[in-house]
Amino acid sequence: MPTPKRPAPDNTGRFAYDGLERVMHEKARLGILTSLVAHNDGLLFNDLKELCALTDGNLSRHLKVLQESHLVEVWKGFNRNRPQTLCRITPTGRARFLEYLNTLEQVIADAADAARANKTASPALLKGWSPA
Amino acid sequence: MPTPKRPAPDNTGRFAYDGLERVMHEKARLGILTSLVAHNDGLLFNDLKELCALTDGNLSRHLKVLQESHLVEVWKGFNRNRPQTLCRITPTGRARFLEYLNTLEQVIADAADAARANKTASPALLKGWSPA
Repeated sequence: MPTPKRPAPDNTGRFAYDGLERVMHEKARLGILTSLVAHNDGLLFNDLKELCALTDGNLSRHLKVLQESHLVEVWKGFNRNRPQTLCRITPTGRARFLEYLNTLEQVIADAADAARANKTASPALLKGWSPA
Repeated sequence: MPTPKRPAPDNTGRFAYDGLERVMHEKARLGILTSLVAHNDGLLFNDLKELCALTDGNLSRHLKVLQESHLVEVWKGFNRNRPQTLCRITPTGRARFLEYLNTLEQVIADAADAARANKTASPALLKGWSPA
């Protein structure tokens, strides 16, 4: 039975990507943080909602998680007597998000290297193995 | 009260990142897929487990999800009478993962552009707003 190539023995955890903090990695929160990094002075709740294509409920829920992790701050104010909510990334949030992005870049570098190195598809059937 | 800059009106969903398919975006599964893209002939279960720093149970659970989404195939075989499990990315899985990586690159481009454009931190207090 042909056995696949073994990875180098010192490669334990090579693809574990511990830097992908779950609080920032969640798809909607990744969009929220990118929006807020792109708008340093903060964004009004409704504008952020549109940029991320989220519902009121979903955005509120994710903002709460980000706020509890000290990544984002939420401010209340009034404009012509109408209540407004402003969301802004914190300095800590900014630093941690940039660290997260470094790990994300590593994922892409690993996968892109791999895709370049392995251009041919493997044969459909594996001699000596049976599908599970 | 100072209000923040508004985003351009045609930017709805600009940071929604629909291409980040949840089945591939989950942190452990992202590691598994990157490992398998880097090892085109497949990886033995135990080697994959080490590369991703996962437990048996966690790896099995994530492989099941990836298998059900037709991204990964699992093969059973024997080596010197010992049962072996081989995991391999499917051609579909490879194509979908490369698409996913394109969206991930977009996230990084957006965030890196933003980080370059907004180097200064905002003031700690927002005049006219109160913390929520």
